[in-house]
Amino acid sequence: MGYSGSNKLNSFSEFDAGAAALAADTFGTPVYVYDENLILQKSRECLCMPNAFGLKVRYAMKANSNRTLLRLITDAGLHLDASSLNEVFRARLAGVAYERIMLTTQETCQGAARAELEKLIMQGLKYNVCSLQQLWLIGDFAQANGFDPGIRIHPGVGSGESSTRNTGDDYSCFGIHLSDLSEAHRYAEKKGIKFRHIHEHIGSGADSEMWRQNIDLELGIIEEYFPDAEVVCFGGGLKEARMPGEHPADVELLGFHAKGQIEDFYYRTGRKLKMEIEPGTYIVANSGYAVTRVLDKKSTSRSNFIVTDGGMEINSRPLLYGSRHPIYIISGDGTHVKSTEFDSITRDYEAVIAGKCCESGDCQTLDMDGHTVPRAVAEPETGDIAIIGGVGAYCSSMAPFNYNSHTQIPEVLFTKERELKLIRKRQTLEQMLANEV
Amino acid sequence: MGYSGSNKLNSFSEFDAGAAALAADTFGTPVYVYDENLILQKSRECLCMPNAFGLKVRYAMKANSNRTLLRLITDAGLHLDASSLNEVFRARLAGVAYERIMLTTQETCQGAARAELEKLIMQGLKYNVCSLQQLWLIGDFAQANGFDPGIRIHPGVGSGESSTRNTGDDYSCFGIHLSDLSEAHRYAEKKGIKFRHIHEHIGSGADSEMWRQNIDLELGIIEEYFPDAEVVCFGGGLKEARMPGEHPADVELLGFHAKGQIEDFYYRTGRKLKMEIEPGTYIVANSGYAVTRVLDKKSTSRSNFIVTDGGMEINSRPLLYGSRHPIYIISGDGTHVKSTEFDSITRDYEAVIAGKCCESGDCQTLDMDGHTVPRAVAEPETGDIAIIGGVGAYCSSMAPFNYNSHTQIPEVLFTKERELKLIRKRQTLEQMLANEV
Repeated sequence: MGYSGSNKLNSFSEFDAGAAALAADTFGTPVYVYDENLILQKSRECLCMPNAFGLKVRYAMKANSNRTLLRLITDAGLHLDASSLNEVFRARLAGVAYERIMLTTQETCQGAARAELEKLIMQGLKYNVCSLQQLWLIGDFAQANGFDPGIRIHPGVGSGESSTRNTGDDYSCFGIHLSDLSEAHRYAEKKGIKFRHIHEHIGSGADSEMWRQNIDLELGIIEEYFPDAEVVCFGGGLKEARMPGEHPADVELLGFHAKGQIEDFYYRTGRKLKMEIEPGTYIVANSGYAVTRVLDKKSTSRSNFIVTDGGMEINSRPLLYGSRHPIYIISGDGTHVKSTEFDSITRDYEAVIAGKCCESGDCQTLDMDGHTVPRAVAEPETGDIAIIGGVGAYCSSMAPFNYNSHTQIPEVLFTKERELKLIRKRQTLEQMLANEV
Repeated sequence: MGYSGSNKLNSFSEFDAGAAALAADTFGTPVYVYDENLILQKSRECLCMPNAFGLKVRYAMKANSNRTLLRLITDAGLHLDASSLNEVFRARLAGVAYERIMLTTQETCQGAARAELEKLIMQGLKYNVCSLQQLWLIGDFAQANGFDPGIRIHPGVGSGESSTRNTGDDYSCFGIHLSDLSEAHRYAEKKGIKFRHIHEHIGSGADSEMWRQNIDLELGIIEEYFPDAEVVCFGGGLKEARMPGEHPADVELLGFHAKGQIEDFYYRTGRKLKMEIEPGTYIVANSGYAVTRVLDKKSTSRSNFIVTDGGMEINSRPLLYGSRHPIYIISGDGTHVKSTEFDSITRDYEAVIAGKCCESGDCQTLDMDGHTVPRAVAEPETGDIAIIGGVGAYCSSMAPFNYNSHTQIPEVLFTKERELKLIRKRQTLEQMLANEV
């Protein structure tokens, strides 16, 4: 795609080498930068998903819960999918109304947390029961207050991306399993609960065919088991493409399929289902850039290594999941793009991109088995900037940021006006140690 | 080993069911508890390692950097191995003198960090160069101040535990590679630097035979390349046994071997080498217990699941490395030990131990490929306590503790006097969000 010689990093974002160098100088490295425009564009794309009788898009806030991003995304028209009570509090502190938040969680709140949950529901929080016990615990409250919780069902079928970690299959325990539905229904009937909101999530990064199949599967389950359903939520898992050659979900095509199936459902049953989706990665992943500085270069008899000042403690996804992220090499002053991974320059240099932690897995270029894999990039000089792309989702929110006593790094928004706005300050050593007695 | 019916959890620690329930009631769950006695015992064991001409034991503080533990361990007579400048600061804040800290790091400090490093060295900090560039950067300072840095060498041989993540092999970049030694020597000679302290580390959890071979390897390298060597550091990687059937390193036997080889080295060369080791896991791993509460139980057509209130955000080692940790099930009031994994009770219940995060990998019982693996435990009731054992090392220091917006959990010392002493308070939601702008 030939960006060499220009300041551009890729075709999908306005964030460029100059802005990266400015971020490095202004806020120090490493630093996360998020491209506001791209977040807005992805949000719009999801909101425009074809649908039959209405669509609600809930951003899966665990992907990245920074207050400014939550505001940005909800201002754009999205609602929120929260995975814990704390995420609900956090969203509220960001100014999001409870009515726009749905809690779907493995936390089966007891005691004080239960009282808190019921208080929040009274204030408008939406709530999916995810286990029989969660249903039993909410039963009396629901009956007393005429509250109908949603239900997350466990279809026993996963996204198929990997056989090892599937949110929807029988190796996981998210939601009420199909085999427990009759028991759930018996109890709900006793308490006068009607299941109007049916939720399913088959896992992250699902290929589009699996996602399409899940639409059919879930509508079949609803037709068979949920006569009171008004809303069908297909969960998240819309695949984003971070690397050249990867293929993102075609949101429009998936929407057309869902629209058709929901219309068919209507023709068969006379019932109009509203649709919901819960994208996280799809909204924010590619907006994120981790701007790091090249500290060192080394070689062994097997590989070259580029050591940067940000690794697993800012992006642990390669180590956790073998995820691949684009690496951009630019001159330290930001005037020269050396390689982007989206360009077509041939290179004869390959290197493993390592971090500064004393941990053999602290590499950004690992395969699914944790092997270090050299990547073809331009050979940098010490002091150059190495940018890890695609780090908007599950990096800041999921990284072991204090490992080796490193401090949590700042977050910066690259605004529509091309300004760099600090949205989270760098943690200090004092803050890291504040709770030690 | 038959602890059922008693209050005991295992044979190696005094921490028991009653203390666990008291910790849960007093500090809430989840909470880390560390057994002081066990830390002291392990420290003594390492200090008693047989040696020829002196031994220094450096605790690898990245394993667990809590201030109270650092004090405890250094008061017991250990020195410290720091992996970052921040770890040095942290150790100093814990009251450890710079003279007792050695910095061995991938951070190739530049600018302000470099000035800071030199200031600390002037105050007594020990420093290993880990790359040619680190050597070049310290050269003038070393010459001007008559400072001899140590050197970490990269032998090109790993610990062999796994082919994928070896600190010592050519898939990693820790230390100055053998092939760069001649260049290092040329430069050192120019600057009048003598390499008196030679460091090597072949990786974590090395089996004893590999550790033994590394002693021979490193002494061979020293004999060939380091005529000024006075200290040989064999690094860390002493294997600890967390689970029944695992075999820990025999520190005494390894010591006897090292002693013999260092004496042989003396007979051959007339040079008396002092020995250093850098255990982390071995000192603290088994001291740690993560006390969690059972929130829920579920089943799919494949597995039972126990959902606890602490998972990958307090111990990500199963997800990162397929590490196995013992699970203890006790009654909610601590009066009854239901299963310990070290007992001999036959059980017909098996379950995957899952956490509360919305993440399919949030399980404590995973294999090396990330598959969920059911574990034979006593079937708990909701409200029972589930304890994850062996979490003293690389859990609190390495976990993505804020994932799903959960707060960092407290740390408690179970003292020699059987008292529970809070050594780190639970993080608040306000603290988690304090740096957001």
